[in-house]
Amino acid sequence: MKATASANANIALIKYWGKRNEELILPQNSSVSVTLEGLKTVTTVDFDKKYKKDNFTLNGKKISGEPFERIAGFLNIIRKMAGSGLKAKIFSKNFFPTATGLASSSAGGATLALASSKAIGLDLNKKGLSLLARRNSGSASRSIEAGFVEWEKGEKEDGTDSFGKQVCDKDYWPEFRIIAGVLNEEEKKTKSRPGMKQSVQTCPFYKVWVENSEKQAKQIKKFILEKKFTKLGELAENNALMLHSVMFNTILPIVYFSEKTVEMIKAVRKWRASGLECYFTIDAGPQVKIICLEKDIPEIKRKLKGIKAIKKIYICKPGDGARLINKHLF
Amino acid sequence: MKATASANANIALIKYWGKRNEELILPQNSSVSVTLEGLKTVTTVDFDKKYKKDNFTLNGKKISGEPFERIAGFLNIIRKMAGSGLKAKIFSKNFFPTATGLASSSAGGATLALASSKAIGLDLNKKGLSLLARRNSGSASRSIEAGFVEWEKGEKEDGTDSFGKQVCDKDYWPEFRIIAGVLNEEEKKTKSRPGMKQSVQTCPFYKVWVENSEKQAKQIKKFILEKKFTKLGELAENNALMLHSVMFNTILPIVYFSEKTVEMIKAVRKWRASGLECYFTIDAGPQVKIICLEKDIPEIKRKLKGIKAIKKIYICKPGDGARLINKHLF
Repeated sequence: MKATASANANIALIKYWGKRNEELILPQNSSVSVTLEGLKTVTTVDFDKKYKKDNFTLNGKKISGEPFERIAGFLNIIRKMAGSGLKAKIFSKNFFPTATGLASSSAGGATLALASSKAIGLDLNKKGLSLLARRNSGSASRSIEAGFVEWEKGEKEDGTDSFGKQVCDKDYWPEFRIIAGVLNEEEKKTKSRPGMKQSVQTCPFYKVWVENSEKQAKQIKKFILEKKFTKLGELAENNALMLHSVMFNTILPIVYFSEKTVEMIKAVRKWRASGLECYFTIDAGPQVKIICLEKDIPEIKRKLKGIKAIKKIYICKPGDGARLINKHLF
Repeated sequence: MKATASANANIALIKYWGKRNEELILPQNSSVSVTLEGLKTVTTVDFDKKYKKDNFTLNGKKISGEPFERIAGFLNIIRKMAGSGLKAKIFSKNFFPTATGLASSSAGGATLALASSKAIGLDLNKKGLSLLARRNSGSASRSIEAGFVEWEKGEKEDGTDSFGKQVCDKDYWPEFRIIAGVLNEEEKKTKSRPGMKQSVQTCPFYKVWVENSEKQAKQIKKFILEKKFTKLGELAENNALMLHSVMFNTILPIVYFSEKTVEMIKAVRKWRASGLECYFTIDAGPQVKIICLEKDIPEIKRKLKGIKAIKKIYICKPGDGARLINKHLF
């Protein structure tokens, strides 16, 4: 009744921001991401009658309040699927900073779906796992699979066609890299969930965002399959700026940008103008991720050394999806 | 044949960004501004047969190239109106930093319209002056009048209903203040004129911007007349964020924000959360202007001292429009 899963976080090239169904976590638009080697979370789930109640420990800290309620709600979904009443003990550990826009919820949600379904005795395929992971965190539906993944928004009201699918094998484009530079490890202030809900309700640009992102999700899949790096980079940058514009124009405005975010944006654009091909993307936090190819890593690393705001960098290639491992956390 | 005019720059609360007619400088949406005491430009124009060609000196520097061609084009409009073939010598001096988003073109354009029309022998009323100033620079149409001014976009194809009108007397709300904090005196990189043209052509949010700004221009006039400071501040902040979102999503993206811009935005929001009522607005440059009331000036000044990025501040109340003065610059 104990199982442990490992999964990598994913970074979206075309972002998810806003639900059409809050309970089922169905998105307004399709999104496309890369599951990244090295941004790893490991989660052990144990369902046992010895537990009187659910219990969740993240990075050594016992979690309570709203974050715990989310996990407990997810466990109820699993228990209902398995016809079980057992309570669970969960240990989860991120091997990269939590809740700083480095997409830890995507990796966490994917490991939780895999480990808890296995521990409770369900044997789900990848589609089933992605559908389940989505119920915990939308972006988690994309971390079940390896490499480039599309989360199609789907059309069905019950959400059974809204899950992550591989665009191509993870080794299809081995030169592709995303560099996550950690600028600031402070916990972000506006959580994504209430933030995106406010955007759907109040942002005057929201409809345009949905229409454009849906188109861009289709376009970027094509650019991935044709390995058109320039087109991909330009489109990802455009989508990220569009996302933050939607956030800026939400009531009240959501400003994830920090001073250092702008410094990084300007640096990337300057490097590109001088012939070093790289692009940026930014999620729900101040972090700027750089999209580039392997050949340019040495030069980009050298340039990043000149930026004092960066504490640490993670250089990631397309990585594995969620998988079971034998070494339990407790 | 020599005349000198003084005018103050204006800062828009609801911004102008994009033309529906490039040649006549007719805007896509109405805008509302405050003409500010202390952000002054003085311009002397002399039309005389001794000049073989037009000649323009700004802040002691002879201007050539595209900026000169713009002035020469404007002088041709004046000459046509007056039926004159005389060439002009122009001296203009800003008493605040040029081309840093501190709206120097609004003051410059207003002085040029008044001084040149007077020097060539035309006697225009305020409407005529505003219509003329608009041909030089859109925002200049708002600096002819004092205090709170609306530039109605108008409906006519010839632009004769697109000019600046006072919302109320300049002394109607004497407690109203705008603090312009100079962060960085470097010349901005993207000039407004080509930038806004690109936004009209490529920004997916542009239509929403126009519709919303048009509504907001009407709303803010009401808030000014009712002296509803909180509503005015919130609306101005929303409009500024919407403007910069449009810029971000122009192809290629226009990012006037600097690191210091974001630092200032966050500071203003933090001060406000702690009970100090102030709002920000941002134009086509990195500068952040603070909208506040006279009573809060000492506390805001004290807080601004803690922000190292600020070199200098201008505390401005609603000021005079364009007027003739006797002291010529040459």
